This record gives sequence, structure tokens and C-alpha cells, in this order.
Amino acid sequence: MKAVPMVEFWRGGLLESLHHGHAVICDADGAIVEAWGDPDAVIFPRSSCKMIQALPLIESGAADAFGVGASRLALACASHQGAAVHSDLVTRWLADLGLGDDDLRCGPQMPRDADAMKHVLCGGESPCRIHNNCSGKHSGFLTLARHLGAGPEYHEADHPVQIAVRHAFEEVTGVASPGYGIDGCSAPNFATTVHGLARAMAFYAGAGDGSDTRSKAAARLVSAMTAFPELVAGEGRACTNLMRAMGGKVAVKTGAEAVFVAILPERRMGIALKILDGAERASEAAIVALLIRLGALDPGHPVVRRYLSGPIRNHAGQAVGERRLAAGFAA
Amino acid sequence: MKAVPMVEFWRGGLLESLHHGHAVICDADGAIVEAWGDPDAVIFPRSSCKMIQALPLIESGAADAFGVGASRLALACASHQGAAVHSDLVTRWLADLGLGDDDLRCGPQMPRDADAMKHVLCGGESPCRIHNNCSGKHSGFLTLARHLGAGPEYHEADHPVQIAVRHAFEEVTGVASPGYGIDGCSAPNFATTVHGLARAMAFYAGAGDGSDTRSKAAARLVSAMTAFPELVAGEGRACTNLMRAMGGKVAVKTGAEAVFVAILPERRMGIALKILDGAERASEAAIVALLIRLGALDPGHPVVRRYLSGPIRNHAGQAVGERRLAAGFAA
Repeated sequence: MKAVPMVEFWRGGLLESLHHGHAVICDADGAIVEAWGDPDAVIFPRSSCKMIQALPLIESGAADAFGVGASRLALACASHQGAAVHSDLVTRWLADLGLGDDDLRCGPQMPRDADAMKHVLCGGESPCRIHNNCSGKHSGFLTLARHLGAGPEYHEADHPVQIAVRHAFEEVTGVASPGYGIDGCSAPNFATTVHGLARAMAFYAGAGDGSDTRSKAAARLVSAMTAFPELVAGEGRACTNLMRAMGGKVAVKTGAEAVFVAILPERRMGIALKILDGAERASEAAIVALLIRLGALDPGHPVVRRYLSGPIRNHAGQAVGERRLAAGFAA
Repeated sequence: MKAVPMVEFWRGGLLESLHHGHAVICDADGAIVEAWGDPDAVIFPRSSCKMIQALPLIESGAADAFGVGASRLALACASHQGAAVHSDLVTRWLADLGLGDDDLRCGPQMPRDADAMKHVLCGGESPCRIHNNCSGKHSGFLTLARHLGAGPEYHEADHPVQIAVRHAFEEVTGVASPGYGIDGCSAPNFATTVHGLARAMAFYAGAGDGSDTRSKAAARLVSAMTAFPELVAGEGRACTNLMRAMGGKVAVKTGAEAVFVAILPERRMGIALKILDGAERASEAAIVALLIRLGALDPGHPVVRRYLSGPIRNHAGQAVGERRLAAGFAA
């Protein structure tokens, strides 16, 4: 099945651009509640699966052995924007391990946070690896590597850390990964289907009921994400804004190339979507529409105007266009 | 007819994202030489039609009356990145008219040029209207308004300047515009078909043969664009890099929401393409593919690697993915 029209961009009463995608809403049993496009489409979750990549950190006992609390677990699941709050916490985490910026295997990245970017640019500094949006995930990898007594190249696919990640990933998605790609942060990113990713999110949504090690680890990660929404992304970012708008009842996470997932514990449901062309503006509008559809997000909340229903403004602040949901999607 | 697959983004041996689009290659008689997708698809050319919006500036006699030379004509056709070379020329142009930043009706825009952006950010300044990528086009509008003795609100659809632009636009595209939208710079942007935009570009390609006022004006604009590629966009930008790579023999111009056009005088052909989802990365790859197909661009030139055939690298500089042309497009 092909991707279906999901989000339209209009200007002057005419359709200017259109985004197609795949989306699946799954229940805690792994069954599809509703789907658009092809549930079996193979995608790279990219950063949307960081809460899965963090499972071995807890299941192995590494998190408890190294005193990794909720804020650091939130950072392990984060695509942060390199604000001071993020880089300071990562720096302290690394220091507690006796490690530093050079031990991270992600490349340096200019902070997306305006103040931090200005600090780097105007101070004549260069961005560091701790500024990389994945530095929290990598700090988790380093913590696990230390706990396992494994080597420093924790980002290599055959390293014990990544082998543990792959096992956890295939188990919670319920799909043997057809392969992996190297992510923007140099770690392997395992491919799965949209249904597989939604199934994993539904497992997290129902994890609070379980007493097994994995369920408890998953529930702990969801609690960490919803308790520290500002650490999962940052001020002004969709993940942070949406988790705040839903009062911490739902965890959401974006991934590069327009992937978005949601974990809804009260509904025991998970959502996964991928916009075919990789446009973030469309994945944000689509996840907002699905969260409203499931009753998790108030359609009257200001974030809905920002990501879906509000006008698109030009440099002069004029309303010049609008987003619309394509016929047949989530309406 | 629907948009067809054009540009694919691969990672780890798997297709990660896909862009669909429409493209038309037209000859100087307005006939379609080759097309993909729907030639009759209605699009907003956005900034790709600035050389059309600049026609009345010359045809009216305003350019000659106010001594608007080739460099200013290039700026009138530009989506510049607000580098010093651009903002200084616009400032002098406005000063020659006894006007300043406040007379521009485009909103302020942070310069895309790295040095200029750093200057604004680190100097604690705010971006100005002259930094807006369309400030050259607006300086042309102001020059025409002055020549016509018309009022200061030159950006309004019923102003003599925009009425003249619409007439020229509909004549060179050969299509009655189905409507207009307000562009990022607050000026009207008239809709047309992909075929209509390609037909207009083919007219510019063959304009050197004509001795009529319009043909001479069009040829003068093409000469200005190819003589000053750095003014049409800026260092590091696709339009500038591609015009340099083709030795000034071809004029190209990008437009917001992934429109790209090309004017090929030696072939007497014009190209227009629109990526359905509005992704610039795909419109750049697609225009490069079509320029190679028409023998205008050397497939071995470094810009081809940059926009089409080269690897996609992550923050650590690793090659992690690649672009491919979709089966059936321009191969």
C-alpha cells in the first residue's frame, strides 16, 4: 500500500504543497486500532526510538549502579537542542563517569537553542559533542558500556551496547529488523515497520501494568520523559510543548526525516507515523491531529494553532497561508 | 495526472524518504519537449519568477531612466542571502532613490549569509528589511513605482506596479493566472501551471533572437543573472554554484516550496519543476539532473556531487546516505 495524503499547505486559496505519509495507532496487544497508508512500510525510527535504545541502560542494572535518575533518563531519550540546561547536565553526567566530550562518539553539532547558538557563535567557539542533540543518549550508552566492562567504541554495531539495543528493539517492535543505517549521531539506527514502531509505543503505554524487568524499565522511561519535557527537546520545541499541553499524561518523541511517536498510558495505545518526504512541519501537524483524534490533546489548546490550525505567517507577520488535514486523514 | 517519484534519499541500503514532483522542459515555441508528472498542475512560482516580476522595470523605461545597471537587475531577480555585498548594493540603490529601509514593504529577515548573520546576532542588532532575500526585487518595484508616479504601497495587488507584473506574467506564461497568494515578502505571487512557467523560461531562452521591447528586456535580465551569479543568491547557494558551474551559459533560479527553473539560451529551452512537498533538497537534485540531461551541466562537476551524486554526511562527517533519482525520472 502507498503513503496517503496527510497534510496540505495552502496559500491564496490554492493548494501549494502536499505531504504523504503512513500512520498506525496500536493497542497494548499489538493490534492495529487504526491505520493510514501502509502499516508494513519499512522506516528508520531515527530519534523517535531513543526510549527503546535506553532500555538496556535500565534492564542491565547500569542505571541503578551509576545513580542515573529520572532527569538523566529523560536526557537519554532526548533530542535536545543544546541549551545550557542540556549541555550542563550532560557534562556532569560524563564527569561522574570520569569522562568528557572526547569520549562521546557523536559528532559536534551547533546548538539549536538560540541563546546557546549565540554563545558559541559570538564567543568564537566551536560547537562540541555535548551540544549534539543525541549527547544524552550517548551518555547512556557510555554508562552501559562502563557497566558491561566493554570498550570505548560503543557506537559500533557489533559492540555489546548496540547488540543489547538491537535485541531490545526487535523484541518490543515484534519485528526482526531488516537492517540498520548510521544515524546523524554515528550510532546504528535499526529499521522496522510503522506497525512495529507503533506496537513498541503501545507496549510502553501499557508497561505500567507489568511487574517484569522490561515493563518496569519502560514505565520508568515514560515517567522520566513526561516529568522532564524540557529535557526531552527544549523550549519552543514540539515534543516539549506537546507533553506540557497534555499535562504529562502522554509521552511524544520526534525523529529525523519526519517520524513521530506517541505513548498514551491512559488509552494503552501507541502511535507511530512517518511522513514520506521527511518534512518535520508535516509530522508535527499529523501527530497533533492524531492526539486530538484520540482525545489526548484539547483541540482548543494554543499548541494546536501553532502546529496545525493556526495561520502561516510571512516575514512581515501577515497570515499568508494555512495547513489543512488531507481528506480521509485523522479528521 | 499526479506528481511522480523524482528524488529518493537512502540510508543503510534502505529507502528512507521520497520526493514526488512535476517537471516540464519547454522549447521557445512553447511546446513541451519532455515532461514528468502533470504539466497542467497549478503552482506558485514564488521567487523562481523574479525575472518575470522585473520585466516591467525595464519595459516601462524605468530601469534606463534611473540608471539601473546589470548588477541591480541581477539583484531584482535575486533571492539573496543578505551578505554585505547584497545589503550594501540595496542600500545604495535605495539611497539613489532618496529612500531607505522603511520604504521597503518586505518584512525583516535574518540574513542567511553566515558572516552577516553573525554580525547581526553578535552585534545585538535586529535584521532589517534590506536583509530580506527579496529586497532587490522590492527595490525594483520602488524604482518602477517612482517612474510611474504611483504610491508607496507598491506591494498591493491593485497597485500599478503589481498590475504591470501580472500582465507581463500572464503574457510570458501564456496562461491566465488562476489567482495569487501573498509571498514571504508580502508581494503578490501569481499562480500558473508548470507548463506555463516552463514556457516563460523558454521565452527568456530565445529572447536573444528578438528585437521587440519585451525580448530585449528578457535577454537583458538573463545576461544580468548570468553575469552576476553571486548576486542572484550568494556564496554556497545552489543558484550561484550552478550558474558558475555552467560558465554563465544558463540562468537558474530557485523558489520557495521547492520550485526551480532554468533558462538555456543555447538550446532555446526552458525548464520548470515543482517538488510536491516543498523540499529544497529535492528541487536542487532534480534541476541538476535535468541540466545534465540537456547537456548543460557536466556530470563530473563537483556541484553535481554536492546536490545529487555525492554522499550525505552526518555530524561526524561520515557518509551515511545517498540521493538517487527515482526510476523513470531524468535518468
